[in-house]
Amino acid sequence: MQQIIDFILELDKLKGVTRKTRPLGLDRYENSAEHSWQIAMLASSLSHYAESPVDVNRVIGMLLVHDIGEIDTGDTIVYAEGGWDERKAAERAAVTRIFGLLPDQQGARFMALWQEFDDSETPEARFANAVDRAMPVLLNLANAGQSWLENGITHERVVGRIAQQIRDGCPALWDYLEVRLEDEHRKGWFGAT
Amino acid sequence: MQQIIDFILELDKLKGVTRKTRPLGLDRYENSAEHSWQIAMLASSLSHYAESPVDVNRVIGMLLVHDIGEIDTGDTIVYAEGGWDERKAAERAAVTRIFGLLPDQQGARFMALWQEFDDSETPEARFANAVDRAMPVLLNLANAGQSWLENGITHERVVGRIAQQIRDGCPALWDYLEVRLEDEHRKGWFGAT
Repeated sequence: MQQIIDFILELDKLKGVTRKTRPLGLDRYENSAEHSWQIAMLASSLSHYAESPVDVNRVIGMLLVHDIGEIDTGDTIVYAEGGWDERKAAERAAVTRIFGLLPDQQGARFMALWQEFDDSETPEARFANAVDRAMPVLLNLANAGQSWLENGITHERVVGRIAQQIRDGCPALWDYLEVRLEDEHRKGWFGAT
Repeated sequence: MQQIIDFILELDKLKGVTRKTRPLGLDRYENSAEHSWQIAMLASSLSHYAESPVDVNRVIGMLLVHDIGEIDTGDTIVYAEGGWDERKAAERAAVTRIFGLLPDQQGARFMALWQEFDDSETPEARFANAVDRAMPVLLNLANAGQSWLENGITHERVVGRIAQQIRDGCPALWDYLEVRLEDEHRKGWFGAT
């Protein structure tokens, strides 16, 4: 029991990992714990639009654990240029440490979910990755492009970093987003090219 | 698709619903969205300790939706005296509105999970309720009784509001907490009697 308690208290630190997006109407930045909850709810609401039929419970499992490595590494905006291999290795070391707090069986189960998400090969993982990529876009579309403007991210960069993954996992969501992004591009809700 | 987007943006408001507990090491109060993520992780780690065998996916589903009514009502500390029937009716009206944003099938599925949690009759719901009650206790035990001291909550009040539910859903967790709470009582981590 004490191992599980130690683990869940370690997870508390994810509430202090901030992202670049602000919750709608709030003055602070979003953290990775509340983001993980929101994308689990988005996946659950959207699963019938997945590119192939998916086991939504495994999708939710992946989304709940996929950001836990950020407890050691912090969040990196998806539009960052380069350095992704190093970041991924650091996140893998982090989840190895954190899931290692648990008894072997539970730790291995979370590690397998984390790895499946990272490999992005199964229909479940591709759908989970699509949902994860789409959520900050949806918030930006509802928030006048807040994080794109604050970080000088162009329309081309947004589309380049998300189109393929969202289309692969949830084509109907990409069809929706593509039109919305084009509309907002015309309104200037992006960093300058 | 637009209904699902409207729903997920409405859910963003749960990030602004604050509870009485502070995340460890942070100066702010916890919000109900990050709390929902953390208890889904606790349930997933702890499910082999449930009082009866449970479908952990349904438990996680309940925990992800159980606080959504607070978007309209706000959070009420579990140690509040009275008024629970009125609060519950207001939360029910809130989730009826919010889940009503979705297409019927998805809305009905979330409503059924919310209702099952609230009824607390199935093994899954009893376990989910135990986990929900236990999490702020675990944070307080790691935080020198922060929310108990700030709100003048006595040891007797804590035990009276949580013992039964935690024991019913996860007896091993209650055995652990009972000893810890007694230890902390001796240290004065509660409001005065």
